[in-house]
Amino acid sequence: MPPLPFGPPPVPPLPLAYDAATDRAREECAVFGIFGTPDAAAHTALGLHALQHRGQEATGLVAHDGDRFNAHRDQGHVGDVFSSRAVMDRLVGTAAIGHNRYSTTGAPNPKNVQPLFAELDLGGVAIAHNGNLTNAHTLRADLIRQGAIFQSTTDTEVILHLMARARGRMVDRLVEALFQVVGAYALVLLTQRKLVGVRDPYGVRPLVLGRLGDAYILASETCAFDIIGAERVRDIEPGEMVVITEDGLESFHPFPPVAPRPCMFEYIYFARPDSIMGGKSVHAVRKAIGRELAREAPADADIVVPVPDSGVPAALGFSEGAGLPFDLGIIRNHYVGRTFIEPTNEIRHLGVRLKHNANRAVLEGKRVVLIDDSIVRGTTSVKIVRMVREAGAAEVHMRVASPPIRYPCFYGIDTPDEAALLASRLSVEGMANYIDCDSLAFISLDGLYRALGEPGRDPARPRYLDHYFTGEYPIPLVDEEDGSRTRQLTLLREAV
Amino acid sequence: MPPLPFGPPPVPPLPLAYDAATDRAREECAVFGIFGTPDAAAHTALGLHALQHRGQEATGLVAHDGDRFNAHRDQGHVGDVFSSRAVMDRLVGTAAIGHNRYSTTGAPNPKNVQPLFAELDLGGVAIAHNGNLTNAHTLRADLIRQGAIFQSTTDTEVILHLMARARGRMVDRLVEALFQVVGAYALVLLTQRKLVGVRDPYGVRPLVLGRLGDAYILASETCAFDIIGAERVRDIEPGEMVVITEDGLESFHPFPPVAPRPCMFEYIYFARPDSIMGGKSVHAVRKAIGRELAREAPADADIVVPVPDSGVPAALGFSEGAGLPFDLGIIRNHYVGRTFIEPTNEIRHLGVRLKHNANRAVLEGKRVVLIDDSIVRGTTSVKIVRMVREAGAAEVHMRVASPPIRYPCFYGIDTPDEAALLASRLSVEGMANYIDCDSLAFISLDGLYRALGEPGRDPARPRYLDHYFTGEYPIPLVDEEDGSRTRQLTLLREAV
Amino acid sequence: MPPLPFGPPPVPPLPLAYDAATDRAREECAVFGIFGTPDAAAHTALGLHALQHRGQEATGLVAHDGDRFNAHRDQGHVGDVFSSRAVMDRLVGTAAIGHNRYSTTGAPNPKNVQPLFAELDLGGVAIAHNGNLTNAHTLRADLIRQGAIFQSTTDTEVILHLMARARGRMVDRLVEALFQVVGAYALVLLTQRKLVGVRDPYGVRPLVLGRLGDAYILASETCAFDIIGAERVRDIEPGEMVVITEDGLESFHPFPPVAPRPCMFEYIYFARPDSIMGGKSVHAVRKAIGRELAREAPADADIVVPVPDSGVPAALGFSEGAGLPFDLGIIRNHYVGRTFIEPTNEIRHLGVRLKHNANRAVLEGKRVVLIDDSIVRGTTSVKIVRMVREAGAAEVHMRVASPPIRYPCFYGIDTPDEAALLASRLSVEGMANYIDCDSLAFISLDGLYRALGEPGRDPARPRYLDHYFTGEYPIPLVDEEDGSRTRQLTLLREAV
Amino acid sequence: MPPLPFGPPPVPPLPLAYDAATDRAREECAVFGIFGTPDAAAHTALGLHALQHRGQEATGLVAHDGDRFNAHRDQGHVGDVFSSRAVMDRLVGTAAIGHNRYSTTGAPNPKNVQPLFAELDLGGVAIAHNGNLTNAHTLRADLIRQGAIFQSTTDTEVILHLMARARGRMVDRLVEALFQVVGAYALVLLTQRKLVGVRDPYGVRPLVLGRLGDAYILASETCAFDIIGAERVRDIEPGEMVVITEDGLESFHPFPPVAPRPCMFEYIYFARPDSIMGGKSVHAVRKAIGRELAREAPADADIVVPVPDSGVPAALGFSEGAGLPFDLGIIRNHYVGRTFIEPTNEIRHLGVRLKHNANRAVLEGKRVVLIDDSIVRGTTSVKIVRMVREAGAAEVHMRVASPPIRYPCFYGIDTPDEAALLASRLSVEGMANYIDCDSLAFISLDGLYRALGEPGRDPARPRYLDHYFTGEYPIPLVDEEDGSRTRQLTLLREAV
Repeated sequence: MPPLPFGPPPVPPLPLAYDAATDRAREECAVFGIFGTPDAAAHTALGLHALQHRGQEATGLVAHDGDRFNAHRDQGHVGDVFSSRAVMDRLVGTAAIGHNRYSTTGAPNPKNVQPLFAELDLGGVAIAHNGNLTNAHTLRADLIRQGAIFQSTTDTEVILHLMARARGRMVDRLVEALFQVVGAYALVLLTQRKLVGVRDPYGVRPLVLGRLGDAYILASETCAFDIIGAERVRDIEPGEMVVITEDGLESFHPFPPVAPRPCMFEYIYFARPDSIMGGKSVHAVRKAIGRELAREAPADADIVVPVPDSGVPAALGFSEGAGLPFDLGIIRNHYVGRTFIEPTNEIRHLGVRLKHNANRAVLEGKRVVLIDDSIVRGTTSVKIVRMVREAGAAEVHMRVASPPIRYPCFYGIDTPDEAALLASRLSVEGMANYIDCDSLAFISLDGLYRALGEPGRDPARPRYLDHYFTGEYPIPLVDEEDGSRTRQLTLLREAV
Repeated sequence: MPPLPFGPPPVPPLPLAYDAATDRAREECAVFGIFGTPDAAAHTALGLHALQHRGQEATGLVAHDGDRFNAHRDQGHVGDVFSSRAVMDRLVGTAAIGHNRYSTTGAPNPKNVQPLFAELDLGGVAIAHNGNLTNAHTLRADLIRQGAIFQSTTDTEVILHLMARARGRMVDRLVEALFQVVGAYALVLLTQRKLVGVRDPYGVRPLVLGRLGDAYILASETCAFDIIGAERVRDIEPGEMVVITEDGLESFHPFPPVAPRPCMFEYIYFARPDSIMGGKSVHAVRKAIGRELAREAPADADIVVPVPDSGVPAALGFSEGAGLPFDLGIIRNHYVGRTFIEPTNEIRHLGVRLKHNANRAVLEGKRVVLIDDSIVRGTTSVKIVRMVREAGAAEVHMRVASPPIRYPCFYGIDTPDEAALLASRLSVEGMANYIDCDSLAFISLDGLYRALGEPGRDPARPRYLDHYFTGEYPIPLVDEEDGSRTRQLTLLREAV
Repeated sequence: MPPLPFGPPPVPPLPLAYDAATDRAREECAVFGIFGTPDAAAHTALGLHALQHRGQEATGLVAHDGDRFNAHRDQGHVGDVFSSRAVMDRLVGTAAIGHNRYSTTGAPNPKNVQPLFAELDLGGVAIAHNGNLTNAHTLRADLIRQGAIFQSTTDTEVILHLMARARGRMVDRLVEALFQVVGAYALVLLTQRKLVGVRDPYGVRPLVLGRLGDAYILASETCAFDIIGAERVRDIEPGEMVVITEDGLESFHPFPPVAPRPCMFEYIYFARPDSIMGGKSVHAVRKAIGRELAREAPADADIVVPVPDSGVPAALGFSEGAGLPFDLGIIRNHYVGRTFIEPTNEIRHLGVRLKHNANRAVLEGKRVVLIDDSIVRGTTSVKIVRMVREAGAAEVHMRVASPPIRYPCFYGIDTPDEAALLASRLSVEGMANYIDCDSLAFISLDGLYRALGEPGRDPARPRYLDHYFTGEYPIPLVDEEDGSRTRQLTLLREAV
Repeated sequence: MPPLPFGPPPVPPLPLAYDAATDRAREECAVFGIFGTPDAAAHTALGLHALQHRGQEATGLVAHDGDRFNAHRDQGHVGDVFSSRAVMDRLVGTAAIGHNRYSTTGAPNPKNVQPLFAELDLGGVAIAHNGNLTNAHTLRADLIRQGAIFQSTTDTEVILHLMARARGRMVDRLVEALFQVVGAYALVLLTQRKLVGVRDPYGVRPLVLGRLGDAYILASETCAFDIIGAERVRDIEPGEMVVITEDGLESFHPFPPVAPRPCMFEYIYFARPDSIMGGKSVHAVRKAIGRELAREAPADADIVVPVPDSGVPAALGFSEGAGLPFDLGIIRNHYVGRTFIEPTNEIRHLGVRLKHNANRAVLEGKRVVLIDDSIVRGTTSVKIVRMVREAGAAEVHMRVASPPIRYPCFYGIDTPDEAALLASRLSVEGMANYIDCDSLAFISLDGLYRALGEPGRDPARPRYLDHYFTGEYPIPLVDEEDGSRTRQLTLLREAV
């Protein structure tokens, strides 16, 4: 390993009881909308529950009852925030939108819980957003200079202010606003008469259309249809806007067309395996990744063991591709909550295994292929490999179902800074060293494209968003260039 | 009694366990600000605690630590909202403002808890307001048409939006904003470098200036100085704006002068008796009212009994004036909370006495002068008189320390509609009938002015705000004329 | 002042924001029971609310619905613990008993919230107790040696265990149990068919009988009858046991008669002024004390000012007796909660006035007679006098409506240890010095008896319990003699 | 299918949103104890967290600090109940025991949360119990007749009362108590100087011994050792009692020996797959069951799909045995909380899939072998099969990793009544009909024994507890015979 400018990799820190930062590093958000059913709020709450994996910090929904908007938002899981009959009874409406929010750094601000709402002169509008606007800080600063007062620190609110200042009907205003924003977004909006869904021109974030009887549904993933017995109609197309009213659904393509770039990480990690995304089964793609990985980076081993739960489909594919038995060598404890005992010094050195435990009976004496979906900071991998070794594994060959993540995301995924990404600091060999595995291999970027049904990555016209691996950001990072990313977004800190 | 256009007075409804509506009918708000002390938040919390009687639904404070604003707001009493060490530890700052909010109708909206905050291009500004703007709905509608998005349904937020759209320095913007609003206000604002206090030109709502060492303090009443050992400097004058910075205090009079009209009801009911308002002891004024009342409307009786606690000082004055013994014939239970058992039908007929109880040993066989501060809906009076009679009083002569309240307030006090005001529906004789007392008398308006040190009410130039009794509203009721008062203020209903 | 064995009195400590210990020093408990009404739980909750002043830490009630006992108990005020419709709906029953508990030192133990309940072979029995058993520790140790397992650390539970081990019918067992206990008690018990009330032979703690229609009621004070419109029948006599069933009320006198000694402090401080106790109006007794005090210890002064609220009736009496005007020179803030901001060092020196404030307009330049009901530790008096002086009083003559408290109570009142009682450490002159008043006088013990209608204290046969002042404990302090008071009552500490 | 005495099987009820009853049907409890480490409470909390799957309603722990016992117990998950630093700080001790409690019917009673505690004359003792005493009601009735007062409605408390009435040292008393009880138990007890573990003579419930440095640990399963890095020493033997003190561990066998009968259901369902029980890997046993099942009941199919998570290991074994591919055709949503929206009529008919969803991409067009661990009421199976069919499965062959459950458990597992057990009402053919699968097969009882390493079930001397399948109850059901099971256990209903 060549000398690194920042010195040798640190001795792996003693694993904490619960590496919350690592876990949170890969969440994003979920949106849901329904129009034309008497119990819109309950349907929305169920849809949000099915999308819980996309964001677990907070959730909210706004319903419209023909007269007023009725809203409820709170920190916590969907099943808790919407568990009270009294709350649900007040959320009357035949149309509703909802949102799950991921964890951000610092104290969560209750004002940021979506859907956001604004009363415009045309009437009210609620909005929920998955994605990230890359010129939000710049626009926000402009709007504030023009006299706008922001009620949240979200980028999403910029869209509301642009709509408030635009002219024309609500949908025209939305288009006018979206022409000014840059970034990734899958949006659902609710007005007094309409449910609107729109996906950015590149189609970075997913949005699917479903039906349940006469009702139309929009959701981040199809698993939100399954929970209420709705059927998938199709994906909302990149750059498409659908407007759903009592008269049915109209589709628009207001933006100049660009070559779509849906986010690869949905397939690798975010989406639930039972979802259909871009017409592809997420589970099937993950298995195909595993098979590719077995072909690209075989290992002389006895068993294939996933890091549960996200590594399981790729491990099944690897097992199939490599002809090696699949087994559950690591058990995940699903009861891990957000908070737990802060470890005292006395127990910190125990290397407490709150979330995963090795299954010695499976691992002992075995040469193990360990499959994980990705490596972000590497701290979880260090813990897992150590645990597998302590359970008696003879060898640990780590295979990763994504290429090395070297670049952060600015399109809606809460990744750490580049400096904290293990693959941006170390070579594959260095990473193997750090993680202390006998071999380490990542799927190639071409292999990943192949698993998605492409012949490989076409450098001239890549079909997916893959900046994590390439550093190529197709959507301009306006705030970054502007230097405004480091600008203080807000002056107010709430004591929650 | 002449026939009434709306028919005979209804049979008094059976008193409920707790007539919350009546109690709430007479609250308003409190403001507090401090500049130049290392523990500004704790001082503010203590000041708000001393002002708790002015608003009990919610409370909040915003402190500035030289770098950021730190805020906490919640439903509930000051002693509960600010009881947590963790909360207080985060409210770092050498300057702070705070607010107590009274109960409004309907579900309280957490977004309305003051101080409000806005990030302007000049930096952040927090605002707390006691009073009411009579053109707020009209301005709000205009601002929304111009693209403003409101974060609350308070009239106060209008000022922030007007400031956001104004030009110049923060104080200039505030003046520009205040030139556009009509109504009653005592405001405190906190910016990154300033604490600002301002009172509307008529001085309807009170605002006093104090000092504690090097720190300046602004508060609705002087009792907020006493709790922290600060000293009263003087009243902020009607129409005066004070700007407090590290360089000291500057005073401005930006508005065209008008003849001041401070609210009489502060003296009658709102203010704490230990406060000094307009240079007068509130307790002394109330005793003077009692003495006037004894002179104007003597009663042939054995004892003077107050309705506690607000009737006590006037009762002492009446006792002194009339030469009749004062005694505690009614006991108040101070443990009454906001919510209690909703009475079932079985216990509703009991006429449950949650808040007051008659002291039979004092009342039995006595001819009682019963002193209350005012009569609003009359429901409490009905209950109290019935209770006093049931305790054996031979006669009940009710004497009221304010003239009959015939007109609602639009300047910051949550009074019921005119139709619900007993004195707007019935003559004094009709009221006596309704309340079932042997005699009923109110202090005259001239008498009230005399108790305040005036020779009487000068109809050409009345010195106090007395629209409750006269229907004379010196500040225009713009929204009323505009018909916009009934306009729906917001389209969003939160399920809290 | 002669030299004190423990050195000169300490410099008065800087008053804390809220001297909770002082406030708690004088609470006890309340009991309530009702039999024969369809909504027994709601009546009981209302009765407990009227008795809130006797105990504010926790409250509970047990109702019987003809089949089962239904219970709810919790920390907090009655109005909060019984505010939920869901809770009340489950408390079905036509008979019920309830209890208010005062604050004890240390973390409150939820297992100690009364009424206690035990399932005996005869069926269930619930019990609520006001008072203190002076041989509880000794009996508890014996019972544990015999195999009893205690569910609480209350002395009350001893009675249940003695009943469980006794033979015969429930009432016989209760008598058998009570023959074994020593101490002060007013008890209410609820069995499947009976409501039982019993008062110890000396009648130390009060218990009154009331009626509401066909229902019988037992309560610590008559104010609990007033709140539900019930009427007082009579006091339960010292040593009397009443057994209320569907067939009516039976009265027994199971104990050998002794000369009754009801507790004087009920009249001085505990009872609500609107209660009738021992046939006497508490308010009237307190006024009589004030008149006696004016006669015994007149002061050359301008006004009489009470320490609110407990000093008010005596101050009215003093004012009447002395011919001096009565006025409210100290204002009490009733919003003070249990917890508030723990004072930081920065604000601790302010001498924060959370609970009381001086009314300068009343006090300034005046020679003040300050009336308080009693002096326990003296810390409150120090603060109050200092505050009155700072408000400009020319002289402060403190007059106290009870003799000096020199001895602790072991009969159910949570007094501090003897060493913490100011009067046990200092002469009256020393106390005046410590409190820094111009003169200090206490009512004489004979004067106190006179206010209660006696010719004075008959040393051979004192009519009231007056050990606070005399050190004469008529009921043996078995545990004290046994040395078992210091024995650890429980080995278990709950983390609540 | 022959006519059934109770008529045709009912039309399957419409699946509710969340069939909580079914889920709860198979929980039991967990115990944990540790002796000789400075941070015993944190270790215990972590151990209980690893054992969370055995009981999720409530949890508690009692630590001993050399002087006192320190306890905390509450409803909820371990990670929530012990998440507060303040709580953990109070749980000082070098020895501790803990308990997880499963859900019972009706409102959970806070008094039943274990460990229970009693202060005996010898000192305090805390106890935690996994299992069920079959003569508890009979003993309880006897003890109450003798004057005992129970603080809970648990069977466990009987042991404390028997100990309280026994003579001799603590351990002698425990033995004396256990000689009187009948039933299944794995107990841990904590006294001032000892940690005691004991398993009933049949060894029905598991208890394992571990070490961490100098500390000894007792736990229901070895996964509780792994989480804190402790090592497994051995199983506590059936009928063995271990007494751990500062001097080390002593082992006793106080009971007359019987042929052990550890519970088979631990292997089938309860235990975590990474636990070692009876020296066997639970995961390995489950895979062996799957292989046996593939041999006994092969299916002509395309894929093997588990009902997650409990069906996964057997499905892996079946896949291996049958040579059919394993895949994740059903996705489990781990965010399902205890409570969720009570379904309104409008959404009830949707057949909401809160917990499981079919993975259409895996199932469509496939002949599916569906593996579940067991069938209790059958309601979940109906839902799962319907869902699999709706996802396009061509055929569904259900294979169950346990024999038909025909008889309830009285030894500590919360099974429904016999009438609610599907297999007690229907033949296998009838069950297949009811569940609507193309074929249905259960592993044979002999096959199950073979998977556990036996040659089959020896009817003369069966090695495991298998009454679920056979109706053979080796431990007498005293309360049942006595008719006392239906006796009302308690007269008190708490409103929580």
